[in-house]
Amino acid sequence: MTAPEARVEVQRHADRGEYDLGVIYAILDEALYCTVGFIDDGRPVVIPMIHVRVGDRLVLHGSPASRMLRILKAGADVAVSVTLLDGLVLARSVFNHSMNYRSVVLFGTGAAIDDPADKLEAMRVFTEKVLPGRWDDARPPSEKEFKGTLMIGIPIDAASAKIRSGPPSDDEQDLDLPVWAGVIPFRTIPGEPIPAPGLSTAIEYPRYLREKYPG
Amino acid sequence: MTAPEARVEVQRHADRGEYDLGVIYAILDEALYCTVGFIDDGRPVVIPMIHVRVGDRLVLHGSPASRMLRILKAGADVAVSVTLLDGLVLARSVFNHSMNYRSVVLFGTGAAIDDPADKLEAMRVFTEKVLPGRWDDARPPSEKEFKGTLMIGIPIDAASAKIRSGPPSDDEQDLDLPVWAGVIPFRTIPGEPIPAPGLSTAIEYPRYLREKYPG
Repeated sequence: MTAPEARVEVQRHADRGEYDLGVIYAILDEALYCTVGFIDDGRPVVIPMIHVRVGDRLVLHGSPASRMLRILKAGADVAVSVTLLDGLVLARSVFNHSMNYRSVVLFGTGAAIDDPADKLEAMRVFTEKVLPGRWDDARPPSEKEFKGTLMIGIPIDAASAKIRSGPPSDDEQDLDLPVWAGVIPFRTIPGEPIPAPGLSTAIEYPRYLREKYPG
Repeated sequence: MTAPEARVEVQRHADRGEYDLGVIYAILDEALYCTVGFIDDGRPVVIPMIHVRVGDRLVLHGSPASRMLRILKAGADVAVSVTLLDGLVLARSVFNHSMNYRSVVLFGTGAAIDDPADKLEAMRVFTEKVLPGRWDDARPPSEKEFKGTLMIGIPIDAASAKIRSGPPSDDEQDLDLPVWAGVIPFRTIPGEPIPAPGLSTAIEYPRYLREKYPG
């Protein structure tokens, strides 16, 4: 692994830094949304967005009227962060409490995805990432909807992951304190699906959704 | 409710904008981490951080050596975003798929919290927000740890929430398509607590944790 460029190098807790693309891709793929940072009128702005990874690009989408997407389309510098929270870390001391997490930060500049085949593929991935099987079931995008979606691709070539996992790191002299220490893991689970009001009772919850979201 | 200043006004899906401080505070209080955006060397940077709200301020903490906290301490413009993902929204058409969420974006400038009583109170809130009862059980911060923590407070006076909830919004002409539509809700749940390696078996998982994190 070559050394990361200075901009993406993890500064705080450098031991938690990861620069392997496989690790970075896995975190980006698991996260359901990201936070996009950019500069507007000289000031920082952050906005949560749904994202997908298509090959070596991170892709955002939205209305062509979106201020953020217009700024990105124009080639402005952008920073994107995703975070997966894995658990609470309880140390014997207040000071050493922490969280277990996997995060990615990437820097770059975006460009519109104009090629119709690339754009359609990105749309497919937006649907299939979260809802495998859905693309072949729901009504496909109309020409108007297709034109009314702006896709921005950002090359993932300046990115780093930061990961904390495992037990608390207590100070040696705290190890014998009579205080419970350990990790409380978190996981996000899907609940019972709620049919849309007015949905025909003849339409069953699809089998392709049941696998990932049994309810 | 007075009109929001332009900077915090929700632009896309303006109907999803909320400017009520009670709504904004509730989202900030539920979220376990935020994403902080700032400008470094002329470029946008985003970093995930644990936060708490203490009264009308959002508070971040970390090492005095943190590049981000040093920039914020110097009074740089900052943007902070938190997002709670509540579910997947499945429409009859690919285009109208969405997510249910509650998010907050706030803009401001930070300042170090130097008053020792204020700083200690913020430390207490960092612990008690997530782990009620923990502050009185774990070893309190030493003088060295107290001095080795930089607390930055950001007034919550330019903030907005954006919320999507409820069923999909399908186009009228799609309502009779034979496609399941509705919401798959998400929730994050704590798993079985994992004691730290070497923890004395005489130390039981505390009762004050059992209420919120039964395992």
